Amino acid sequence: MEQLPKRPANYVPLSPVGFLPRANAVYGDRTSVIYGRVRFTWAQTYHRCRRLASALLALGVRRNDVVSVLAPNVPAMYEMHFAVPMAGAVLNTINTRLDAGAVATILRHSEAKLFFVDYDYVRLAGDALQILVAKHPGAPVPLVAVIDDIDAPTGVRLGELEYEALVARGDPDADLPPLQDEWDAVTLNYTSGTTSAPKGVLYSHRGAYLSTTSLLLQWGVGTEPVYLWTLPMFHCNGWTFTWGMAARGGANVCIRDARAADIYRAIARHRVTHMCCAPVVFGILLEGDGHGDGASGKRLDAPVHVLTGGAPPPAALLERVERVGFKVTHAYGLTEATGPALACEWRDQWDRLPLPERARLKARQGVSVLSLADADVKNVDTMLSVPRDGKTVGEIVLRGSSVMKGYLNNPDANDKAFKGGWFLTGDVGVVHQDGYIEIKDRSKDVIISGGENICSKEVEEVLFRHPALADAAVVAMPHPRWGETPCAFVVPRDHAKAAAAGFEDDVLAFCSKRMARFMVPKKVVVLPHALPRNALGKVEKVKLREMARKLAPTVPAPQKPKGKTTTTTTVGGRRDEQPVAHVMAVSRL
Amino acid sequence: MEQLPKRPANYVPLSPVGFLPRANAVYGDRTSVIYGRVRFTWAQTYHRCRRLASALLALGVRRNDVVSVLAPNVPAMYEMHFAVPMAGAVLNTINTRLDAGAVATILRHSEAKLFFVDYDYVRLAGDALQILVAKHPGAPVPLVAVIDDIDAPTGVRLGELEYEALVARGDPDADLPPLQDEWDAVTLNYTSGTTSAPKGVLYSHRGAYLSTTSLLLQWGVGTEPVYLWTLPMFHCNGWTFTWGMAARGGANVCIRDARAADIYRAIARHRVTHMCCAPVVFGILLEGDGHGDGASGKRLDAPVHVLTGGAPPPAALLERVERVGFKVTHAYGLTEATGPALACEWRDQWDRLPLPERARLKARQGVSVLSLADADVKNVDTMLSVPRDGKTVGEIVLRGSSVMKGYLNNPDANDKAFKGGWFLTGDVGVVHQDGYIEIKDRSKDVIISGGENICSKEVEEVLFRHPALADAAVVAMPHPRWGETPCAFVVPRDHAKAAAAGFEDDVLAFCSKRMARFMVPKKVVVLPHALPRNALGKVEKVKLREMARKLAPTVPAPQKPKGKTTTTTTVGGRRDEQPVAHVMAVSRL
Repeated sequence: MEQLPKRPANYVPLSPVGFLPRANAVYGDRTSVIYGRVRFTWAQTYHRCRRLASALLALGVRRNDVVSVLAPNVPAMYEMHFAVPMAGAVLNTINTRLDAGAVATILRHSEAKLFFVDYDYVRLAGDALQILVAKHPGAPVPLVAVIDDIDAPTGVRLGELEYEALVARGDPDADLPPLQDEWDAVTLNYTSGTTSAPKGVLYSHRGAYLSTTSLLLQWGVGTEPVYLWTLPMFHCNGWTFTWGMAARGGANVCIRDARAADIYRAIARHRVTHMCCAPVVFGILLEGDGHGDGASGKRLDAPVHVLTGGAPPPAALLERVERVGFKVTHAYGLTEATGPALACEWRDQWDRLPLPERARLKARQGVSVLSLADADVKNVDTMLSVPRDGKTVGEIVLRGSSVMKGYLNNPDANDKAFKGGWFLTGDVGVVHQDGYIEIKDRSKDVIISGGENICSKEVEEVLFRHPALADAAVVAMPHPRWGETPCAFVVPRDHAKAAAAGFEDDVLAFCSKRMARFMVPKKVVVLPHALPRNALGKVEKVKLREMARKLAPTVPAPQKPKGKTTTTTTVGGRRDEQPVAHVMAVSRL
Repeated sequence: MEQLPKRPANYVPLSPVGFLPRANAVYGDRTSVIYGRVRFTWAQTYHRCRRLASALLALGVRRNDVVSVLAPNVPAMYEMHFAVPMAGAVLNTINTRLDAGAVATILRHSEAKLFFVDYDYVRLAGDALQILVAKHPGAPVPLVAVIDDIDAPTGVRLGELEYEALVARGDPDADLPPLQDEWDAVTLNYTSGTTSAPKGVLYSHRGAYLSTTSLLLQWGVGTEPVYLWTLPMFHCNGWTFTWGMAARGGANVCIRDARAADIYRAIARHRVTHMCCAPVVFGILLEGDGHGDGASGKRLDAPVHVLTGGAPPPAALLERVERVGFKVTHAYGLTEATGPALACEWRDQWDRLPLPERARLKARQGVSVLSLADADVKNVDTMLSVPRDGKTVGEIVLRGSSVMKGYLNNPDANDKAFKGGWFLTGDVGVVHQDGYIEIKDRSKDVIISGGENICSKEVEEVLFRHPALADAAVVAMPHPRWGETPCAFVVPRDHAKAAAAGFEDDVLAFCSKRMARFMVPKKVVVLPHALPRNALGKVEKVKLREMARKLAPTVPAPQKPKGKTTTTTTVGGRRDEQPVAHVMAVSRL
């Protein structure tokens, strides 16, 4: 029984990249990618990826080399999810909303060998490369290749290489290095880019394969899906549905921006069946229906299944998008868990409950996906499970093959993240009697704005450098449109000067120059005294969050609410049930 | 990048057994098993399995020990799929339709330590144990435990141990040995039991896990399925849906026999959503609707999804069962591939085609399931792929982690089965232009009758031992009810004697004493001369099959056909498109 060896026929290293040759074999004539007037079949996508992989090898890319990409949801971005690991390399997708400094930090930390840049991000990339060279003289600088628009080429270049030219010069019949070990890294996703020790999350081929099949199963993605790319592929590799669409032979509808008009046009034209997004996109969808509340007018011809990340949108918002024809499933996840880790699996019997009760059940984050061996809530000092009473809080911990390989070159972060056989999420929750987990408070220092994670410490570090400030703290302020926005509490060195007009604007301008736009505080509160601190000298952020909550805008800005506003429709009135956009990219400190 | 170790938090050995603790955690209060008046929840099933596992350990069962079971689809049979591997042991489910000699051969070959026997099979088991002792004096004899009826205990015993007593004396809190290596064996399924070198197919935990999730995905099994056990669990562990129901928190409705009345009663009472069966069960279902053709009368209240194994039923039969409310998906598989290996994934665009064209497309075996890295049709001499022309035949070959670990203690069979990085199925097929595989001829020496595989060589070996016969050959004869039945062509030593009345009956009686009932030829043809042989002396079975086809009954016996009979409704009239019950347990020689 022990003597039966693993053979090439019965032991194939698990890899989501393997879904592509299979798609070529069995879905070869079906549509793989749609972008503007461009349309590929799975056979074409497969051969294009083989070409690109061989071109990467010809450029000297080798096993475990990092290939970075800064691009929106375009065909090249999709193809690189296969072509880069087919060359043995590791794909690093960079959030396009970061600023040049953060991009430079990622390029430096990942030691990227090659850097693909969408034509629209050439300036950002150029700035990042300048910072890289200036700050780290002697550090390796990646080769740069521009991804021009495949539908309407612009001619924009940054260096000599161009994506389509690389594909063209690649050999589809070249030998590619076979994957030997499923524990090899397939992608690298940064949860945070600007600090001195950025956290680059590595996925193994094995983990990504298991996550992909598990999430297809969890969401119930059937045959012939038409998937609209509203969720950026740079978020957990599109929560694995980049690979998932190859597994199911689906069509990937790529759009550069998740604008309401583009979304509705794509849905109608291509009969979209599935999409993922942060809850903030619901607001965009409701505005775009021409009525703002989905109560009348627009109806989708056929239902579109939406998987949304993190905390569920409030019941009323959910009801409004569902009325338009979106069928929403929500999940909770984080980059370190390869996207969704818990999903609120609905039970038919709950359909018969009154609405408030249904909303309460739907607000729970749910049960572990199948790729996890276990999810639990524990007292992380004792590592004992909390009782299943829906009350006792603890930290949500995960265990299973879809948990990341680890943080790249960051032993401290790895030491903190793994404990006693578990991965610690940093999020606080309870377990209900039926085993469903509910988040009670997120990792304290994460602000989630419009689907993007903001690490409050990073914003604070910039504020500390402002010459006129003695102290500063940043917390989340609820926002009816963006879920949360950063709110800065600052203590000036000179209170008289701070009282002058334009002081807040000056602080904001200082931030704008030093961080991505979405990270810049939407409000600066000048405190007359010191920050509230506890006996140990720790800033009491609970108090600041309470203050921020009172200062928060309650009426959505560009949206025209009818009747209730979103902020007054929270379930149970708890802070964490604001319409926050808690997404799959929770970063922790 | 290379230095990130596997940790308990991110590298958990894959095992389908792990779905049970998860089901306990997240579906604990939901129904797991229904049998008569007995009903368990997932929490109860989990704790019962832990108890049984600890009882097995107390009996001395150790890692890699084989625990055999001879039982129909009862709760104990279900539970053993978890409890036995939880004790580190390997579950061996024995086909209840075998005769005592074949059961003895399996007990001997597997070196079973423990043998669980359903009360209704005590006589068969007793006979098997006697043969074991008589034929192999000194061979280890397994401990025996009876599985009494849990709903209506009978008091029948065979030895001192009884299943419920073992469960009762087990300790649910006992430490169970953790799975260290996902390559360890989880189950052992024999494709053939009577020959001197039986083929015991070993599944690894890894392969079984991957097959389970892949088949749930392929069949689109959603949340809260209610699964009716018409397919015997001893066929490829119920094609992995034993474990699959734990993964989805479904309800397992157990019935001892797949009789029409029991099936319809279970469907109505428990709102069954899913079942698997061989196509032969369609006949049973149509008879049982009281009309014989499903054209009127019985309609299911809600659709029941049916996954059927192997060659599709003829279009007309399919149409009739679908009219009753069964939604049929068909797949092709074999024990060595952990059940389904190919599935005829339907494409929406085919809905618009005329019926004959639809039937032609549905007759194809389809595309590889996701757990396979690849499926192909090759010339196995050159190992080159056949062109995708739908015409050039070759052998169907498979590659991927759902292919068996190997045959237990049978190096010859392993050497033959694995070649050039592929597993050879022995089945002959073509690849169509769109990548869909279609079987053109099955492994020549397999006869599939009523969902059971019969190895023609095994029947021939018995005939060779008949003193009055000089030669014999057995081939498949089409049968409108059983798909195929064995037809024996015999050459008597003395033609005069053979002409006497009762000669055929004597041959049949000889067989009946020496093999399971379903293996006994339904027809004996006495040839006046020698068997037709080619130049190399090989029996020309093609000619015999042709003769058998002409001798075949065309009117189904207990069924009342209206209009066309099933045999005249074959698509294209090819032999392999008769309503055969080609199931997941194809054995090869």
